[in-house]
Amino acid sequence: MSLQIDLNSDLGESFGAYKMGDDEALLKVVSSANVACGFHGGDPSVMRQTVGLCSNMAVAVGAHPSYQDLQGFGRRNVSMTPDEVYEICIYQVGALMGFCKAAGVPLEHVKPHGALYNQAAKDLDLAKAIAAAIKDLSKGDRDLILLGLANSKLQEAAEELSVPFAGEAFADRAYQPDGTLVPRSQKGAVIHDPAMASQRALEMALHGKVVAHDGSEVVINAQSICVHGDTRGAVEMAVKIREGLLTAGVRIRPIREVLGL
Amino acid sequence: MSLQIDLNSDLGESFGAYKMGDDEALLKVVSSANVACGFHGGDPSVMRQTVGLCSNMAVAVGAHPSYQDLQGFGRRNVSMTPDEVYEICIYQVGALMGFCKAAGVPLEHVKPHGALYNQAAKDLDLAKAIAAAIKDLSKGDRDLILLGLANSKLQEAAEELSVPFAGEAFADRAYQPDGTLVPRSQKGAVIHDPAMASQRALEMALHGKVVAHDGSEVVINAQSICVHGDTRGAVEMAVKIREGLLTAGVRIRPIREVLGL
Amino acid sequence: MSLQIDLNSDLGESFGAYKMGDDEALLKVVSSANVACGFHGGDPSVMRQTVGLCSNMAVAVGAHPSYQDLQGFGRRNVSMTPDEVYEICIYQVGALMGFCKAAGVPLEHVKPHGALYNQAAKDLDLAKAIAAAIKDLSKGDRDLILLGLANSKLQEAAEELSVPFAGEAFADRAYQPDGTLVPRSQKGAVIHDPAMASQRALEMALHGKVVAHDGSEVVINAQSICVHGDTRGAVEMAVKIREGLLTAGVRIRPIREVLGL
Amino acid sequence: MSLQIDLNSDLGESFGAYKMGDDEALLKVVSSANVACGFHGGDPSVMRQTVGLCSNMAVAVGAHPSYQDLQGFGRRNVSMTPDEVYEICIYQVGALMGFCKAAGVPLEHVKPHGALYNQAAKDLDLAKAIAAAIKDLSKGDRDLILLGLANSKLQEAAEELSVPFAGEAFADRAYQPDGTLVPRSQKGAVIHDPAMASQRALEMALHGKVVAHDGSEVVINAQSICVHGDTRGAVEMAVKIREGLLTAGVRIRPIREVLGL
Repeated sequence: MSLQIDLNSDLGESFGAYKMGDDEALLKVVSSANVACGFHGGDPSVMRQTVGLCSNMAVAVGAHPSYQDLQGFGRRNVSMTPDEVYEICIYQVGALMGFCKAAGVPLEHVKPHGALYNQAAKDLDLAKAIAAAIKDLSKGDRDLILLGLANSKLQEAAEELSVPFAGEAFADRAYQPDGTLVPRSQKGAVIHDPAMASQRALEMALHGKVVAHDGSEVVINAQSICVHGDTRGAVEMAVKIREGLLTAGVRIRPIREVLGL
Repeated sequence: MSLQIDLNSDLGESFGAYKMGDDEALLKVVSSANVACGFHGGDPSVMRQTVGLCSNMAVAVGAHPSYQDLQGFGRRNVSMTPDEVYEICIYQVGALMGFCKAAGVPLEHVKPHGALYNQAAKDLDLAKAIAAAIKDLSKGDRDLILLGLANSKLQEAAEELSVPFAGEAFADRAYQPDGTLVPRSQKGAVIHDPAMASQRALEMALHGKVVAHDGSEVVINAQSICVHGDTRGAVEMAVKIREGLLTAGVRIRPIREVLGL
Repeated sequence: MSLQIDLNSDLGESFGAYKMGDDEALLKVVSSANVACGFHGGDPSVMRQTVGLCSNMAVAVGAHPSYQDLQGFGRRNVSMTPDEVYEICIYQVGALMGFCKAAGVPLEHVKPHGALYNQAAKDLDLAKAIAAAIKDLSKGDRDLILLGLANSKLQEAAEELSVPFAGEAFADRAYQPDGTLVPRSQKGAVIHDPAMASQRALEMALHGKVVAHDGSEVVINAQSICVHGDTRGAVEMAVKIREGLLTAGVRIRPIREVLGL
Repeated sequence: MSLQIDLNSDLGESFGAYKMGDDEALLKVVSSANVACGFHGGDPSVMRQTVGLCSNMAVAVGAHPSYQDLQGFGRRNVSMTPDEVYEICIYQVGALMGFCKAAGVPLEHVKPHGALYNQAAKDLDLAKAIAAAIKDLSKGDRDLILLGLANSKLQEAAEELSVPFAGEAFADRAYQPDGTLVPRSQKGAVIHDPAMASQRALEMALHGKVVAHDGSEVVINAQSICVHGDTRGAVEMAVKIREGLLTAGVRIRPIREVLGL
């Protein structure tokens, strides 16, 4: 049996007259799309169009809910209670489910965005609020999958609430020996060389590990690798990562398939 | 077989720290609630709470989508294309469906709000955009019902797209001989006397007609009567209307039952 | 020379169809109004109307800028840089200055709202961002006054930037021996008895001190006492505080006069 | 005495992470900038930065208020009362005046944006609401100038309220024999050839006229020519227009100078 992994990317983050990212190029690369739901990017027109593009390109659709913060692109921490986080997740994921239903496309997963992702990765109560929303939106249907940082509180929350979980890794980010990311504020935190990123993605997919910034090896248990489309050269890097995986015989498959669900 | 009619009201229009209407009182009166979806009122917390209250009180839940206009409470006309109207309906109704799914409550109907309601009542293209959203959100499930002004373009659009339609009438509004409402700007447009409103509701339910402001009789083919909770005495009037109907032997039932679906 | 103190209150926090507080009643009580600027409450129509009411009642107008968070009423912490805080202050205070200019009324002071107030009271960088905005908006005109928590980072920032500062105290809140407020989460944090609040306001105005919740005396160096209009009985309490001060011969004067500027 | 004309452009329309237009390039071309005020584009950070850029490049700063419609980029008609239009103008222009004051730069003019511009150009009541806001914001200072469509209701309103008015013309738009623009929906409405646009701008500046799409000559009494930075080739066209004017000896000067105020 051949190895397989998912490639995911944030998409549909344009808003009104404002364009962001090269969604059409990325959709040729990834197997899963995290579609913005209007709170940090995306608007109802963009959401409809993005779900349509995913459908055309046979890319799995996921929801990408966020704090309501268009100006800050969802990157600002906001102090909300777990109940409030649950509620904004139901609202946003529900809205995207509407577009999926209208387009005849299943919603497959949910990946929180930006500050919500980062805060929930460290705060079990927030993580459980997100997992609970996912669980409640799965009622009577197939289970939605929570896509998040491997070995974080998001994973812990998913396990606690019996929500299927897929861990993601970053081919373009340096890792610390404990498996956490080197903060962006630190030198060398982001890898800009497509060849190196591709090589790291391959290590993750084939051997479940990556070399940390101190030279040690870190175990990375990831079912999905996150690629980007919003920075210079990001699409080129994503293409390289995809090609490297395919060349090595790794199949690129949506999360549900990788998880064997 | 006894006569039956639906009583509907707009609910869940509070927002954050701002309270509007006496939802708990109205929920004892009505059989259907039109729940605001965040664009003119309502926020994710209010939506969750309102769906929960409806569930507890066995009141049918409907969505009440609007133009995105919190300051104008959705009462300002906005020039949007039919496609854009379709998209904001999918977004808002989808979001409310999320709360319904989480609460284990079915969504029953959709009634557009304010300026969207008024514009679509006269503009077939907008009305068809709303009906199409309702149809597309019904895929694979029970048909959602469009609740709107009887004999308007909303009804025409619903029939054209084979979307179940329920016409509503207003016991507290004066009618013109052609069956349209006397504009609010005109004297006598709004009826403030609860006894008179109750009497008119009864005429509508029992005989399908009402006396127009010129004294003539107008046929009103309504499956639902709209009552309000946001004006002085509105709840009192709603109670009177309910009591008058019940006393006369008219059963108050949710739209789906009235339509025999 | 008789003693004098300012009474301030947050006003103009209605939004669109949503009403909040009894502004007309409070304007008979206070000498200074902190007018919401659209980010947590208030909209351009409410702002214009509130400035007009202040003008009619000869109440000094101040700006009440906030994080942009209507749903959370500005009470949620948001992680913004000092530069961003400076910018939202310029924007909101500038907007209110527009209404003041149009009405021929001077803007007198700025009091940050909610989470912005609380965070800046503890974080010198945020406090300096607010003070810098006030200083820059005073260019070529009379100095605007920063109204904030006495002995907080807001006071420190004002002093560092040579911005006139007025400290405020709370007659309806319990104090800790170190002069900080007892957190709302603790029992007895809020005083509901108008007579007791009035008595405490008098102690603050006459003797510059108040009894802490452990019975010790705390020095309170306040030029203004904050009263509320948004809770049950708040207006009644505000009236009592005003009457108590006047009866004791304390003159109620706007901040600028109390500061002798 | 040499001829002179103003070149104006809409600037500062980025929002948060979303970039729009090439402001730095345009600032080398124009003499006046219409700076977005947060309602259709622009946010407090962008506003501050744009005012700073204008100051550095010695470009006159104007306000560019709009309906509150970020998703529609201010291009959707919204039904607001003249009072409400007055209020959103005070709010937005006031906010920009705040940034101007902080930067030590005078605000020179106001040009309404998008749908607000187009509706007010035809509706005297809306136009007068805008003119009244400009007049009221000029109290005690130099008169702000209303920049708008020549020969429209905006001009009529400005004259009625004694607000200085500058008419603008479009070098890249076809004109009808009556001096109005050929609607964008019509073929040939937009001129894409930089040389032709430059030639037309020159005709407008030198002779106060332009050839209409039927070949007739139309009188164009414009003190300013609008150039764009948001379409493909727009900056190139703006450069060509500037060079054509300068080569012909037309001086490019801000509105106030052109009007001789």
